[in-house]
Amino acid sequence: MDKILVFGHQNPDTDAITSAISYAYLLNQKGLEAEAVALGEFGDETAFALKSFDQEPLRVIETAASETTTIALVDHNESQQSVADLKDLEVYSVVDHHKIGDFTSPAPLSFLTKPYGCTQTILFELFQQEGIEIPKNIAGLMLSAIISDTLLFKSPTTTEQDKIVGEKLAAIAEVDIETYGLDLLKSGTNVDAKSATEIAEGDAKSFEMGGKPVRIGQINVVDVDDVLKRKEEVLSTMQDLVTDNDYSAFFLVVTNILTSDSEGLVVGSEDFIQHAEQAFAGKVTDNQIALPGVVSRKKQVVPPLEKTF
Amino acid sequence: MDKILVFGHQNPDTDAITSAISYAYLLNQKGLEAEAVALGEFGDETAFALKSFDQEPLRVIETAASETTTIALVDHNESQQSVADLKDLEVYSVVDHHKIGDFTSPAPLSFLTKPYGCTQTILFELFQQEGIEIPKNIAGLMLSAIISDTLLFKSPTTTEQDKIVGEKLAAIAEVDIETYGLDLLKSGTNVDAKSATEIAEGDAKSFEMGGKPVRIGQINVVDVDDVLKRKEEVLSTMQDLVTDNDYSAFFLVVTNILTSDSEGLVVGSEDFIQHAEQAFAGKVTDNQIALPGVVSRKKQVVPPLEKTF
Repeated sequence: MDKILVFGHQNPDTDAITSAISYAYLLNQKGLEAEAVALGEFGDETAFALKSFDQEPLRVIETAASETTTIALVDHNESQQSVADLKDLEVYSVVDHHKIGDFTSPAPLSFLTKPYGCTQTILFELFQQEGIEIPKNIAGLMLSAIISDTLLFKSPTTTEQDKIVGEKLAAIAEVDIETYGLDLLKSGTNVDAKSATEIAEGDAKSFEMGGKPVRIGQINVVDVDDVLKRKEEVLSTMQDLVTDNDYSAFFLVVTNILTSDSEGLVVGSEDFIQHAEQAFAGKVTDNQIALPGVVSRKKQVVPPLEKTF
Repeated sequence: MDKILVFGHQNPDTDAITSAISYAYLLNQKGLEAEAVALGEFGDETAFALKSFDQEPLRVIETAASETTTIALVDHNESQQSVADLKDLEVYSVVDHHKIGDFTSPAPLSFLTKPYGCTQTILFELFQQEGIEIPKNIAGLMLSAIISDTLLFKSPTTTEQDKIVGEKLAAIAEVDIETYGLDLLKSGTNVDAKSATEIAEGDAKSFEMGGKPVRIGQINVVDVDDVLKRKEEVLSTMQDLVTDNDYSAFFLVVTNILTSDSEGLVVGSEDFIQHAEQAFAGKVTDNQIALPGVVSRKKQVVPPLEKTF
């Protein structure tokens, strides 16, 4: 078998990057040749995690077939989030915590998803099942992804198992979860250094609602005023993105990771704004709506919006 | 959560039936309400396995939404092999050893496939991971499925892990693998009691080749003459099935489980017959072609045929 290239989704977050690292390590320990790579550059939070645990950045690839026949996917399974030449490659395995999309295979393979808050929680179980010890630095990276995906266990996507595994990893990594976790989350919130486009688009995804694409972004901050003081600039950028891409609306969720509340900024059709007011039982005033207690796009933003369509 | 209905594929074989039983037992032990059911009547071999280990036959269902909201799939993942109202139900989990077909989910779930010879080999690992003891009768049923799917470890679909798990289950079930295994396989080979349609169609599946559906059946025997003595009757039935269903051909693999060789019977287009001769490097004479060493439709019949198209 060719070397297995292991990678997470495009526009990678901390789970996508570090799950590639920990899973490639697991495969190496099982005697397989595997290399963790990335499908794009990562953000400040991931950089902080890698630096904290002495990990070099991953090599970035766009296609894989020029260098191997065999790949492993972590933290994603849908083709549009994966490597560009996916259909020319054999998928050795998949480990993921998302819904199952358009994945198909010509032959049986190892495919494992679980409804946990983070891919690393599943990978921790695989390490245990294989009886492979997790080194201190890998444990730190795995913990970082769990903190990132669950917003320090405050997101409603968090499961009991994420908490249990997080505690165990913190013990191996010899860090205090609260202290390190807050430092990690804060490291990704330096809004002043970001352009308006980076603020709106940095973590944005498209969702089809009422037959039209709605763009929904999310940015974590320690003070929502870091974004609101640049509100006009950000709204103008969002409006440009709507016009250029024919979105029916752009909805940006600005999440305060300290209070676990969000503010929504919205531009787009009158129709979408009415749906947003219905979904979040509030009023859009000056393109802004309060989202108390909302931290998860996946669980608390997309489903209520979808329900109104 | 509603009671979880657990079932294998339509036209169930020993793995489909017994994996539902062992997985429902596992879920019960984890404190979940679960019931094993079947998507159809089973054959002689499965009946022999159930009787050998004091298991009552499963209730047969065609739809599930009238009695629950939640299901678990074993030994299949493709919608056309599953319950008729699959789209109205929430899939709690999937455990399977087949390629991944058209399965999608609206939310994350537990989904586990491995490239083993039998679903029960994966389920054995789940019992171990959960620390749940396998009772003697369940172990016997699990072993029966592994013997059935791997033709007593002779099929090329067999993996090292199937053998290891088979040995462990035989120890728990207190049976001799060879003796019980041969009795089990022979129990499914009573050709005299079968109609020509049952012989041809009993385990048949459709495959698209060259843009047309080809029907491929397989029957296990201890003496190929049990089928060949009724060759004209069986060929005539196969021809009727081709005509009625617009198949380009019907290919029936008659497998001697004692010698691990097969004979192929074929009716259909001249074109398909030429492809069959090319695929199996032999001559079709009187609608018959020798298939020495062939025991697995999945690995040794479908791929060589597909390659010629």
